[in-house]
Amino acid sequence: MEAYRKLLLLLVLLLGRASTSVLDNRIDQFELDNSSENSCNLPDTLLQEIKTYQPIVNKIISGIVDGQFAGKTWESLSQLVDTFGARLAGSEQLEKAIDYVLDRMKEDQLENVHTENATVPHWVRGYESAQLVTPFKKNLPLLGLGTSVGTPRGGIIADVLAVESFKEFESITPDQVKGKIVVFVPQWESYGKTVVYRSKGASVASKKGAVATLIRSVTPFSIGSPHTGGQNYEEGVKKIPSACITVEDAEMILRKYRRGDQMTIHLEMEDRNLEPFVSRNTIAELVGTKYTNSSVVIVSGHLDSWDVGVGAMDDGGGALISWKALTFLKAMGLRPKRTIRAILWTGEEEGLWGGRAYKDAHKTNEKEEFNFFFESDIGTFEPRGLDFSGNNDAGCIFREIVKLMSSLNATDFETPTDGGPDISHWTSRGFPGASLMNKNEKYFWFHHSAGDSMAVEDPKNLDKCAALWAAAAYVVADLSVSIPKDVID
Amino acid sequence: MEAYRKLLLLLVLLLGRASTSVLDNRIDQFELDNSSENSCNLPDTLLQEIKTYQPIVNKIISGIVDGQFAGKTWESLSQLVDTFGARLAGSEQLEKAIDYVLDRMKEDQLENVHTENATVPHWVRGYESAQLVTPFKKNLPLLGLGTSVGTPRGGIIADVLAVESFKEFESITPDQVKGKIVVFVPQWESYGKTVVYRSKGASVASKKGAVATLIRSVTPFSIGSPHTGGQNYEEGVKKIPSACITVEDAEMILRKYRRGDQMTIHLEMEDRNLEPFVSRNTIAELVGTKYTNSSVVIVSGHLDSWDVGVGAMDDGGGALISWKALTFLKAMGLRPKRTIRAILWTGEEEGLWGGRAYKDAHKTNEKEEFNFFFESDIGTFEPRGLDFSGNNDAGCIFREIVKLMSSLNATDFETPTDGGPDISHWTSRGFPGASLMNKNEKYFWFHHSAGDSMAVEDPKNLDKCAALWAAAAYVVADLSVSIPKDVID
Repeated sequence: MEAYRKLLLLLVLLLGRASTSVLDNRIDQFELDNSSENSCNLPDTLLQEIKTYQPIVNKIISGIVDGQFAGKTWESLSQLVDTFGARLAGSEQLEKAIDYVLDRMKEDQLENVHTENATVPHWVRGYESAQLVTPFKKNLPLLGLGTSVGTPRGGIIADVLAVESFKEFESITPDQVKGKIVVFVPQWESYGKTVVYRSKGASVASKKGAVATLIRSVTPFSIGSPHTGGQNYEEGVKKIPSACITVEDAEMILRKYRRGDQMTIHLEMEDRNLEPFVSRNTIAELVGTKYTNSSVVIVSGHLDSWDVGVGAMDDGGGALISWKALTFLKAMGLRPKRTIRAILWTGEEEGLWGGRAYKDAHKTNEKEEFNFFFESDIGTFEPRGLDFSGNNDAGCIFREIVKLMSSLNATDFETPTDGGPDISHWTSRGFPGASLMNKNEKYFWFHHSAGDSMAVEDPKNLDKCAALWAAAAYVVADLSVSIPKDVID
Repeated sequence: MEAYRKLLLLLVLLLGRASTSVLDNRIDQFELDNSSENSCNLPDTLLQEIKTYQPIVNKIISGIVDGQFAGKTWESLSQLVDTFGARLAGSEQLEKAIDYVLDRMKEDQLENVHTENATVPHWVRGYESAQLVTPFKKNLPLLGLGTSVGTPRGGIIADVLAVESFKEFESITPDQVKGKIVVFVPQWESYGKTVVYRSKGASVASKKGAVATLIRSVTPFSIGSPHTGGQNYEEGVKKIPSACITVEDAEMILRKYRRGDQMTIHLEMEDRNLEPFVSRNTIAELVGTKYTNSSVVIVSGHLDSWDVGVGAMDDGGGALISWKALTFLKAMGLRPKRTIRAILWTGEEEGLWGGRAYKDAHKTNEKEEFNFFFESDIGTFEPRGLDFSGNNDAGCIFREIVKLMSSLNATDFETPTDGGPDISHWTSRGFPGASLMNKNEKYFWFHHSAGDSMAVEDPKNLDKCAALWAAAAYVVADLSVSIPKDVID
């Protein structure tokens, strides 16, 4: 996922919510104070109704974790990523993977299996090489950043200027920067805080005349692997090549620079931006017994990935549990009142393009069409619970639903949500949604790197995540009431 | 370090000790049962003498850890590896690093600063590339193994055969292997058990007609980095290219192979073996007040490294604490009765060549020349204590010395030693020695990979290791008695 976008969208949400309060589908008995569980005052009938789901939730969980479906999610994910590898937006591999998933969804007897088009950027990585040439030769493993331009053929050889922060860079004059490769070496604080160097470094450096930027990979821990990710050129600024290097090399360069060592780097990148590409969101349903195309519950993750590693963690796991939640519910003969729709987004990594296209295509009737949005895009390690976004009324209901997940030891409820980038197209405007919280303390160790592989995914944890996903979606989709929402028009 | 060699040498030691017991410099009062501390019966006068070193040990430790030398070891190591990078045997960088260390040792006013020649293999890594070309294209990061031959120019394209173990490979006929690239994917058990695939894989596969081998990197944990290391061709077997790939890719290839997926890899390696090179062991002393060139106490680590990462952990840390132990003792005005000699070995990684050359050159009078051998080559994380090798009499004394390290919380005593590859040239023949034990649970995560960098080294832990080194060497060198030994002639 692109967590920095998530932060921006959260800000939009908070500002929007403060200024507007359009109540939609409101349950009037609820208090609106969002500060704590004590502000909830659910009708006893609804409380009792939610509790009646405990046996079916337990059945769903035991079937997926200990029963006939145990291990199936890992096996399916492994088949997918072992067959197609990485799935960059615009690539043949992603489109082949979409076709493959469609076929498998049909085999699973899911309903309304189809795709909907989404135009995505088409950036491609070419040959990439960086070498410290002065004062000694050292290969610097690197990964160009999404949307980065390449170097001229043969590359560029330039002196190095290294800084730890944008603040430090402010004090440096354009004369000192001109013609140099600027190396940004921010200490890791958090993804949200540190990723600004990756997303903005090229523009910041270019304004003062840098010829390229190399940035410390955005990770708290490294074993010599570079991490890629998106970056954005500011309007009107000369586009210069931008890549991440390893933590190890970046820190070495900063130490040497501060000691006054003169350094020269030969950088060659054949990365380039092609014409936008029409990709597809991959969709399947378990059609509701009472509502079919209204009050739909979405479960989602993105099928695309960066082009390094195989995207098993980001976001193969999230995509798989969304797909398999439907498969397992169907196989167990469980069909709720409302439709559950799995959406495997495309083009998430380059800027949430799949979600955006879907939002635009379903805009007209969206308040009626959508009841709730689930998204898993911050790992499928051992689940902890669900991270909620929506109004207080909705939160009060959802908090009770999460309590049903005690047999998974996954009853944590937090709000606002912190990890639903694609569904932020809706949650940022007041639609209710939730993200899967899991024990993902090592998530950024592997994120956007060659370490994003099946080795990160544990079969039992994937089962538990799929179970949580299926059970929570089932209850939301089957409740007598829709989840309340305040949508900003 | 090359731990598999250590295991072999330990075996030699144990076999040798069982068959021969030449007592040398024996303290007759001691019991010879080596089973526990209870078998010790040190004379009270010696016990008391060792205890009198507690104040000076505490002074050494506090000076290095909390006093004027705090942080100096990390800073010196950082200067070394940031200035020269990796230091492969036979490389210009290693020889420049040796010259640099000699100059710094002289600046530190160490004594008898000099080098002694050691002929080392001269293997060089050339361009290396592996790509899965069928059924989809995927770059497979790899590192050729020391002594591996290259491929023909343009590389080889061959079908893949993947197995988990040599046992599984035994059941496969040469017809099935001929012309293939054999991928060995052993599960990690321990370094000693798993490294045999790296050291022997090429010969095992070649005997059945393989054209190359790719081996799962020998590590328990990976973030997409390959790990290099040595390998050995058996006599009379055709030499085929051999490299390690990442854990992630190796496991993917094994899963695909077991599903029946046909895979083709394009492998190109320009690695080659040049003529042996005359390198140097780097030596400095703190000359004893009573003995100068006899009963010497050696403190050591190796200055060479593999050519990936910068060899800060393997074995920059061990080399630095050996050098700086002398520097700090000298600066504190502490000079023991016996000479302490720091030796920074060369050519360790290719097979303990520096130690071997030194042993051969000092063979004639070795029993008189050497009292005790220290080596640090399994990390300089937080120290735990010392790992001893030698006869029971020596162990009884050394156990008491280790007890003096309580202010470092580093009083663990284990035996036999498990981590002194270069000094095994002596300890395997009955000379007493010890290796630095430290909290190195993550050692193999970084070992022989791009992750071997200053990021692994903690200034405070390096101070503690240097303090332990200096204090233990001082006491051994100053004791009224030499450490007993049973040397196999």
